[in-house]
Order: sequence, then structure tokens, then C-alpha cells
Amino acid sequence: MLSALALARQIENGTLTPSKVVDMCAEAIAAHEPDVGAFVRVDIAAARRKADALARTPLHGLPVGVKDIFDTADFPTEYNSKIYKGYQPPGDCAAVMQIKRAGGVILGKTETSELAYMQHPRTKNPRNLAHTPGGSSSGSAAAIAAGMAPITTGTQTGGSVIRPAAYCGIAGMKPSYRLIPTAGIKDFSPSLDTVGLFGATVPDVAFALAGMTGRDMRVDRTPPAAPTLLVARTRVWDQASADMQKAVEDTARAAQAAGARVEDIELPGIVEEAWRVQLIIMDYEGFRTLAWEYDNHRSLIGPVLGALLDKAASITTEDYDAARRLTRQARHVINDMLEGRFILTPSCGSAAPEGYLTTGNAIFNRLWTSMGTPCVNVPGIVDGANMPLGVQIVGRFGRDHATLEAAAFVETVIARS
Amino acid sequence: MLSALALARQIENGTLTPSKVVDMCAEAIAAHEPDVGAFVRVDIAAARRKADALARTPLHGLPVGVKDIFDTADFPTEYNSKIYKGYQPPGDCAAVMQIKRAGGVILGKTETSELAYMQHPRTKNPRNLAHTPGGSSSGSAAAIAAGMAPITTGTQTGGSVIRPAAYCGIAGMKPSYRLIPTAGIKDFSPSLDTVGLFGATVPDVAFALAGMTGRDMRVDRTPPAAPTLLVARTRVWDQASADMQKAVEDTARAAQAAGARVEDIELPGIVEEAWRVQLIIMDYEGFRTLAWEYDNHRSLIGPVLGALLDKAASITTEDYDAARRLTRQARHVINDMLEGRFILTPSCGSAAPEGYLTTGNAIFNRLWTSMGTPCVNVPGIVDGANMPLGVQIVGRFGRDHATLEAAAFVETVIARS
Repeated sequence: MLSALALARQIENGTLTPSKVVDMCAEAIAAHEPDVGAFVRVDIAAARRKADALARTPLHGLPVGVKDIFDTADFPTEYNSKIYKGYQPPGDCAAVMQIKRAGGVILGKTETSELAYMQHPRTKNPRNLAHTPGGSSSGSAAAIAAGMAPITTGTQTGGSVIRPAAYCGIAGMKPSYRLIPTAGIKDFSPSLDTVGLFGATVPDVAFALAGMTGRDMRVDRTPPAAPTLLVARTRVWDQASADMQKAVEDTARAAQAAGARVEDIELPGIVEEAWRVQLIIMDYEGFRTLAWEYDNHRSLIGPVLGALLDKAASITTEDYDAARRLTRQARHVINDMLEGRFILTPSCGSAAPEGYLTTGNAIFNRLWTSMGTPCVNVPGIVDGANMPLGVQIVGRFGRDHATLEAAAFVETVIARS
Repeated sequence: MLSALALARQIENGTLTPSKVVDMCAEAIAAHEPDVGAFVRVDIAAARRKADALARTPLHGLPVGVKDIFDTADFPTEYNSKIYKGYQPPGDCAAVMQIKRAGGVILGKTETSELAYMQHPRTKNPRNLAHTPGGSSSGSAAAIAAGMAPITTGTQTGGSVIRPAAYCGIAGMKPSYRLIPTAGIKDFSPSLDTVGLFGATVPDVAFALAGMTGRDMRVDRTPPAAPTLLVARTRVWDQASADMQKAVEDTARAAQAAGARVEDIELPGIVEEAWRVQLIIMDYEGFRTLAWEYDNHRSLIGPVLGALLDKAASITTEDYDAARRLTRQARHVINDMLEGRFILTPSCGSAAPEGYLTTGNAIFNRLWTSMGTPCVNVPGIVDGANMPLGVQIVGRFGRDHATLEAAAFVETVIARS
């Protein structure tokens, strides 16, 4: 994999040029793209042309793969939807402009499931091509895992950043709700849609987030302090595989041995309740956000999204309002609980399932999306079949840097154990 | 003016057809559009063709004018920006689809200031053509005042719904933040941007909101109960003209005489503070949301928006974060205060200023936008020059129906006095 941070350091000290990094991406793409299918389109020549002039910027001219639901002026943006075949947006979305303003180079657009819902795209998991990479940010996670790019972007409405990161054995982060702007990104459920980032390791993601936002997010300058971790088994714990349960338990023990304070915790009832209603919010809003597509082009919508929208039509406004109210209340409770502490919990139920029928289950992610809390997938553990298992660190809303630090600590602990 | 509710009743009882309503709009447009300039484009023929089939829907096939920052499949959407001349979006935004699903007919696109900021568009105030109609939803407010449409849409980021409604002497509502979805509407400041509606009277706006959202919003079925009104003179009271101060005082007295409980109130310090920082949020986000336009087409951006973005570039992330935090805290305070009560306060500082140099001042609106509270402009009062003065009713977040009821009560009181 390409470490954004390591590449940036080499560019900084003059031992590497940004255009050489583009060449490295191009080589990995040539080698693996036919199997993996991570990109909808790339423009290597344009990236190479632009990169060197950006060496002295925050992102040092590094190439970035952008999920194909982010509007771009330089590439068509098709949302993996037949309705939008060849669609060329008039401009770049705000998040892409943050990358450009920070001196990143848009390498290409990465595969997404249809309109960022759950229909499996053509992408395969670079760790084992017979397995799903997860979704909906499938191409962005796979591109990192296959060494095709050092930074990629995704979005999470259910579990579309953390799950593919875990399945592909890379670092991924869903920052606090709207830390990165969603303007110009195809909406699904505006109360939930959150822009995220992928990289080889946690410090790489932190480097990318720091560059894009101009905020103090780096975690590579001093060794991360030992955090207080709350092991949250939650009501879906028994839906985690034995390997995944063991991954969390082992991580908790190793973190404790390395100096972290570790406590078991049960989530308050209202927070568990909020979990249940996340789908009400997502589906109710999706039926309205995708109204034009649904009412005018139903036959061009795939079976998975089509079935969801058919069903979502009957969600009542009363149920939606109650779900929103409950979620608001639960956010206060969870944020009080996460003052100076971080939850350790599975990133998903298991390693990536075999096959491409589904992109996997977001059950371990939905709550954290609706809570608006920063979440990081920490890679480094594998199961018996050598497939990656991700553990998730969840922090308080707005404490993105501290959450990255806790995740970096855990990543170090895992690497050592 | 065309009362949406009165027209709907006639359609319901068979004494009017929706296509006849389109003809009424067409006549008013033919008579006044050359002077007023409310519409960017209309399609009378298409509206007439569609209307009658929709007679038995919630909106009864009524024609709706849509601000030209709402993406539409049937009309170009130009945001009054040279950058977007002739731009044709691929589909309808979610709010337009709510109108269509409810059986409204899109009559045309209404004038907006450039990218919904403050550059005066060509629209004039139908109450006096030498005066501004306000902005940024200028065309939507003017179209109602000139009888060109019974329902129009707007957006408010500072004061872009309530101010033009007040200046044009019509009813206007900014519902609770995101009650109507903004997906597919050109963003400016996503934390603030709120879709609103215009109509001849408060019950007309309530009828339109009920239709669009499928929520219980009507206020015409029973006489509205006498509310508890908090007269909030606020720290900008001395920026209101003597006529405007008198309008609020007279309204308070008349409401009390009609059975309302009326109390004077001072806003808590943190709420007044939140007022001050609304511009920090708006401008910081605007600089990021409009990054593509600013970085690539600076020369095509007009002087008012251009100067704002030049300045906004230097707002720090620390100031923005502090503003967001303060705003969140103030929302809790204001919502506690508005439990079962409503604020009565000026909709703007005065009647519409003469000339077209500015669209007026949003100082009486900014706070309520950042609080996310429902706001209604109540028309019916005029100043010495016979220009409309609007008073504003503000309710608790999520209490849109109750706020409309309080506003309808006040409207009745004003009409009688």
C-alpha cells in the first residue's frame, strides 16, 4: 500500500517527486485494476502534469481517488446509476475543492454502489478477489488496499466508510457529521450522509484530513497517549463472528497492557433505541431525496435500491419525526458518555464475506452514523483465512483529532501484538 | 393576489378548474411582468396542459413559482450567475418533487440574487416599483404580490424569505431547519440554508406547506387560539424605524385586546451572542461551498458576492468552530424559552427601501435562521407611504403548525384593527 504520510515526507525532503507518486499509482492500477475494478475512470496524464507544481502544498501533490458520487468538473460523475450515464456536473463539489485547495491531485473516480446504496458494484476485494470489498465506497477502499492511490474519499450513510475499510484491511475514517462539506455530493439521507477518508494507516488518514480541512489532525508527530477505551459489546455483539469478538477482546487486553484504561460498558437504553430507528431516518429521507429518479426512471433503478424505495414510500412522517427526536436525545447521552473516552467496538460483524451478492451488513455502523460521532477503522488483525478484521474507535462529536489519536494508539498496539 | 386556499376550495367544489388558475397567472404575468421582473422563465402552456389532471391532489393542480436556485428538469437553473448561464440540471430537486408529488404544477423559475447572496436582481417591488422587493428570494415574493402565482418557494440563509415577504406585503414562512429538504438546491451555507414558502396570507402558506410535506399544517379549519406572545425588542430594536416599532407595539396591544397573553422579554445573553456569530458561520461555509466558482470563475462573480468571498477567505476555523458551538448552546436556550410561546418581533427594520442598490438588511432575521426556528412574516400593516410593514412570529423548532396558528391569529387581529 502507499502511505500518504511516508510519501509526503519523501516529497518534503526531496527524495521523491509527486509525479513519481502518480507513476506508482499508474503501475499498481495497470497491475491490479483489471482484477479489482476500483476505478470508474482515471486520468494519469493529467495528474502527472499537475502534480509536481504542488509539491510544497499541504497535500504535496499526492493523488487522490474520489468516490463517483462527488461532483467533479474534470470527470463525468455517474453515481453508478443508469440514469446518470455520462453525466457531467458543471463544477467540483466542495470536498473536491478542499482537496484541490490543499494541493491534492484528483487521480480519478472510484466505484460506488448504485447511488451509494447497497447494490454490489463490479469492485472486488484486493485481499481476496472472491470476496466483497464492502460498500458503498467500494472502489475507494479497494484502491487503497491495492496500492493504487494513497488517499481516497468515501461517504457513509449506514456503514459505507468503516465497513469497506475493515473488509479491505485499511484505515478509514468517518469524521464528525459535516466536518467535511457534502455540498455537491449526491445526497441520500442528508441527516446522515457524512464524507469520509481512506488511507493505508491511521496516521495517513489523519494526514489527509489535516490537509483537506486545515485543522490540527496529524497523529504522527508525537506517540499517541494511552486513551480510556470503553469496550461496547452492544446489543448486536452476538452478530459478530467469534473471530471478530476475539479481535475486540484481544485488542482491549493489548491496549490495557500498553497502558490504556479499559472499561466494559453497556450503552444506555435510549442509545440502543436510536440504533433501531436509524433505518427509518435513512429510508424516509432517501425516498424524498431520490424522488426524481424514482418517479421518472423507476425502470433504470436496480433491484436492491428499487426494493428499498418501494418499501420506504410507506414510512410515516410520525415515525420519522419520532426517530429524529429520539436520535437528538441519544446524541446528548452518547456525547456525555464520550467526554475524554472512546468506544472500542467491532467495525463490522466479520471479515469480508465471500461473493458479491451483498456489500455486507452495516449493523455495526448505523448507530455511529446517526450519532454524528467520529469513527475510525483500525486495521492490522486478520482471521484464520488471513482476511482482515477491523476494530472501530468511536469518539465524541467534534473530537476528531483525539479520536484519531486513540485509533493510532490502538493501531500501534495491534501492530506490536 | 391569488389566495392558494381560496382557489383550492373553488377547485374542490367544482367552480374553478386548475387550468383557469394558470390563465389567471398568465394574465397577471402579461400585465405586470414587464415592470416587476419576477420570473426568469415561465411555461404557461405546459402548466395549463398538466393542471386539470391534478385537480384532486393535495395542491389541486395549483401553479407554483420556484426560485431559480432549485434544480429543475423542465427548466434551466441559472442561480442568476454568469457561470451557470443556460445550465440544465439533470433532474428535479427534492423540494420540487414534493410539489409535484402533491399535485402542484411548476409554473416557472423566479428571480434570485446571484447565487442567493445579496446582489440586487432585476426584480422590482410590485407595491411600488421604485422600491426593492428584498432578496434573495426576490422574484418569488414579487410574484405573489403581483398576483402572478398563488404559491412560490424561497430559501433563507440570512433573511431571504422573511424580508422579501415583509417588503412585498405578503405572507412568508421559513419553516424549521430542513423541514423541507434542500437536496438539489444550490448550497450557500448548509448549516443555515432553509427552504421557505410564500403566499398571499398565512393560511395560504400553511395550505402549501401542508400539501408539500403531507403534514398537519392547515390553519383555516378552526379559528386559531389566542397565543402567548413574547415581545422581543432585542438588541437591534433601535435599528427598526419608528413606523416598524409602532407596528410591533400596536400588534402586541391588539393581540392582547383579542385575548392573547403578551409579555415583554429580553433575549438571554447567549442568544444575543449567537446573533453576532451567524455571519461567521454563513461566510465561512460560503467560501467553501462556492469554492469551485470562486477559484475558477472569479471574474464572472458580481461585486457584492465577490467582495464577501474575498473577505470570507480569512475567517479562521477556530472562529467558525466557536460560532457553531455557541449556536448549538443558544438553540437549547431559545427552544426552552419558546415552549408553548411565540416571539413577536419585526420582520425587518422598515418598509422596503427605495432603490435597487441593496436587497435590504437581514439583521432582524439572521438569529432566527441560525436558531433553526420556524418564522412567519405576517402582512397587513402599512406605513405612512402605504408601503407594507411585516411583523414576525417565531416559534420553537419543530412547532411549525403551532407557529402558523399563532401567526394566523396575529394576522386576523391586524386585519380587524
